[in-house]
Amino acid sequence: MAMSSCTASTIHHIPLPSNTAKTGHQAVPQQPMHCIATANATATTAAPPENNISQSLQSRRASSSSINLPTVLTNLFHLSTHKSNPNSSAHLNTLPTPTPISAAGRSTPTLSPKEDISSLYPQIHGSADWSPLLDPLHPYLRREIVKYGEFSQATYDAFDYNPFSKYCGSCLYSRPRFFEKLGLARSGYGVEKYLYAMSHVELPRWLERSVHADTWSKDSNWMGYVAASDDQESRRIGCRNIVVCWRGTVAQAEWFEDIQGKLELLDGEHDKNVRVEHGFLSLYTSKSEATRYNKTSASEQVMEEIERLVKLYKQRGEKVSLTVTGHSLGGALALLTAFEAASTIPDLPVSVISFGAPRVGNGAFAEKLKQLQVKTLRVVVKQDVVPKLPGILFNEGGLMGRQLEWVYTHVGLELGLNVNSSPYLKHGTMDFSGFHSLETYLHLVDGYLSGDSGFRTSAKRDVALVNKACGMLKDDLRIPTCWNQSANKGMVCNAYGRWVHPQRAPEDVPSPMRKPQALPSPSQDHRP
Amino acid sequence: MAMSSCTASTIHHIPLPSNTAKTGHQAVPQQPMHCIATANATATTAAPPENNISQSLQSRRASSSSINLPTVLTNLFHLSTHKSNPNSSAHLNTLPTPTPISAAGRSTPTLSPKEDISSLYPQIHGSADWSPLLDPLHPYLRREIVKYGEFSQATYDAFDYNPFSKYCGSCLYSRPRFFEKLGLARSGYGVEKYLYAMSHVELPRWLERSVHADTWSKDSNWMGYVAASDDQESRRIGCRNIVVCWRGTVAQAEWFEDIQGKLELLDGEHDKNVRVEHGFLSLYTSKSEATRYNKTSASEQVMEEIERLVKLYKQRGEKVSLTVTGHSLGGALALLTAFEAASTIPDLPVSVISFGAPRVGNGAFAEKLKQLQVKTLRVVVKQDVVPKLPGILFNEGGLMGRQLEWVYTHVGLELGLNVNSSPYLKHGTMDFSGFHSLETYLHLVDGYLSGDSGFRTSAKRDVALVNKACGMLKDDLRIPTCWNQSANKGMVCNAYGRWVHPQRAPEDVPSPMRKPQALPSPSQDHRP
Repeated sequence: MAMSSCTASTIHHIPLPSNTAKTGHQAVPQQPMHCIATANATATTAAPPENNISQSLQSRRASSSSINLPTVLTNLFHLSTHKSNPNSSAHLNTLPTPTPISAAGRSTPTLSPKEDISSLYPQIHGSADWSPLLDPLHPYLRREIVKYGEFSQATYDAFDYNPFSKYCGSCLYSRPRFFEKLGLARSGYGVEKYLYAMSHVELPRWLERSVHADTWSKDSNWMGYVAASDDQESRRIGCRNIVVCWRGTVAQAEWFEDIQGKLELLDGEHDKNVRVEHGFLSLYTSKSEATRYNKTSASEQVMEEIERLVKLYKQRGEKVSLTVTGHSLGGALALLTAFEAASTIPDLPVSVISFGAPRVGNGAFAEKLKQLQVKTLRVVVKQDVVPKLPGILFNEGGLMGRQLEWVYTHVGLELGLNVNSSPYLKHGTMDFSGFHSLETYLHLVDGYLSGDSGFRTSAKRDVALVNKACGMLKDDLRIPTCWNQSANKGMVCNAYGRWVHPQRAPEDVPSPMRKPQALPSPSQDHRP
Repeated sequence: MAMSSCTASTIHHIPLPSNTAKTGHQAVPQQPMHCIATANATATTAAPPENNISQSLQSRRASSSSINLPTVLTNLFHLSTHKSNPNSSAHLNTLPTPTPISAAGRSTPTLSPKEDISSLYPQIHGSADWSPLLDPLHPYLRREIVKYGEFSQATYDAFDYNPFSKYCGSCLYSRPRFFEKLGLARSGYGVEKYLYAMSHVELPRWLERSVHADTWSKDSNWMGYVAASDDQESRRIGCRNIVVCWRGTVAQAEWFEDIQGKLELLDGEHDKNVRVEHGFLSLYTSKSEATRYNKTSASEQVMEEIERLVKLYKQRGEKVSLTVTGHSLGGALALLTAFEAASTIPDLPVSVISFGAPRVGNGAFAEKLKQLQVKTLRVVVKQDVVPKLPGILFNEGGLMGRQLEWVYTHVGLELGLNVNSSPYLKHGTMDFSGFHSLETYLHLVDGYLSGDSGFRTSAKRDVALVNKACGMLKDDLRIPTCWNQSANKGMVCNAYGRWVHPQRAPEDVPSPMRKPQALPSPSQDHRP
């Protein structure tokens, strides 16, 4: 299973697309990657200070004043039909006035610019120490965290939860259309493989099932994907980045309480002290010849693809990195994947960025991850109970006499978020579902400056997204709660006036036979 | 307020559109109305037996066999991907095999043909006695009942319930686009006026309110509309038909229980025994100079428009009829409107077709309606509790010694429907909301043959519609419950990637200033 290793000295460059193309994988690029301007930066119309790197670095602390929820922000977020009063925006004076785009001046871009961060690659990816970038949070790292968080959010947005759909439990979109359908066409990544996991009695209420007898799969659910950065994005970030993204579960804290219990030995691990939670491990490793999508386990599927991609890109002489990400249950699976990849593939920088993930294993597991140089950043909302599970009793409540291999332990660094830091969120509620929601996490990351300061005034991410699946936004903002719903629960009116469940486009029907295509040679790689 | 009367002998014809146009309103049509073929009949591709009138009349009793829920019907309703087995449709042998339209044979038309029923006008409209057409139910009358029911359903489908909308409580669409937006472009009617009613403390939980301060109206809700048949439809049905359609309430039986109580004298009515429910009457008659939309009451708004239209069409020498319709609370308002119109406009045939309407007045009110020759057809689902309200205690439970003017009484004829007659609906449930749902009513009318027979095999109306706002359909049909919902609760993603409440198109913004336009002369009346 181990990869053939490449010599590190030959892998500094990402090949260019366009007319520099040469046949074969060893084409020498004409420009070093850090000289290439990033075209995506032009996607935003009003240029905020971060657009310029040095300006950004100088102004980071200057912009760290906290804000309330005044009329000016209501205007900024398009919640009023009136033009904003220029006098009332005095506290935003560290920022240039955004150029009004629409006639009514109510529309501002939601995207931050994407700078060339290739020179900071080891720091941002975490292979060097992340800690100096965390307090205050470096804007480049913030944007990368949000990027991976949006990749994780995509697993929810693309999941077919509709029990009346024959494809309940699958991904709504085919691999080539995935990012485009989810508004991530400009992410600079392409999906290489879909991952499936099978139902297992030892994980309660996990599988989403169709009411149809002729469903696409009775045993498996779509569980995530493997993606890779394209040439342009690889140049921008300084390496070919493989991303594994695991879907979490919509079930909430009670679900994690149900599974807390058994720590289990990792199969094939020499250190018999290393133990991980039984339920997560069974989801990750279960397979059955009787199924269509899990003749191989989630573990085997993901490792096969990581190995294929690492081999491919290393053969091209590129720097390759692996980032494993996920929210909630997906964050737990991310740690297992990172552990396995770092154990089996030599010289691969592996990092984990998890959101609201529960504990996965014991102290020996955490120690082993450290030895394997897996860099882990756990993004955690203070009010969210899931990261305290399982093992809240053992870890928080004492029982110090218990042997260490039976105590769940968190790994890596924590980026601690606080619901009360945001002027947009309700404070003092007990909305556990809202605290755990990934969109709440992404909103708080977007506004995060440092552990002791308020919400970032220059945060651009659309606050309305918070309420997609919860009601955490203040009522003043007038965003409906749980607004992410499909028209007519997916029913459509056909040409004869009948309301029917639409057939999926043939390319979006899941098929276990559809293998990843051979990657195009660099010159043909024209992903947006 | 009384109309100038026209002599009945001059009003037999509806003017033709097209090249027969002459200026003025007294143009003599070149063909009598009952000779004109109805173009709408060609809208359906497969011609069922009802397409031919004599065939229809002969086969009415032949098709009255009841059915179960076999695979063939699952196929008919597009719930399977397999072609139907021709052998299994043996019990449908009184009907020709529908011509498959799509390649998969899964799509059949939902619309019944619209025959020329002008010669039956007095019977169908009810100005002659309706009873001979009710058991078994004449297919022409069934279609007319469904037509008015769909007009009533449109008041729900077009109502803005979204409290996050600035226009909560208004109609989503402007008058000219109303029927088109609701899939009723082929109805042959055009909306002439919108009706508003104001909030009133004596009707509990009635007004839908926006959370916005700058809402379109703080005091009024859109409550219905006045429509009129176009030339073609008028020729088909044998008269110029004015329709008043009142919206009901989404509040359920408890709501009606709350209001049961006070019977009140009708203002201006000489007979002091005539009393109607206080809450309905206050909704119908309240007005306030301080409001934008109810400087005149609902009563004044609707009577002004009826009188305008009656005068207009009678001046053209046409036969004019008034049909007042509504579901639930709307059915109660319909009776008040019919009472008022019949009291004030001489020689106007007035009929009421109500769905699941509560009782409105006492015995003297019912008797007065009879004297006024208001024909009333109350469509009632046996399991629905609302038609038993208010006054369930007095009327069902005895208290016979009580004086008659204090006892609520139903009026007119009843078309009694039974949930258990439909093989598509759940039996034995206690879904009071589902029993009362207008779509349940329309489904049962569509399948109704007679009081003692089963569901009509040739019923074409889309059964999926039943579950728009309830869960009455059997689970086997795999139609989601309460599926009528808007995408993302009305939020849309703007060009900058932000999720916002869309601005309404200027023509759909409610305005009390927008008066009904002068009707075009007959030659310019080209409504679809």
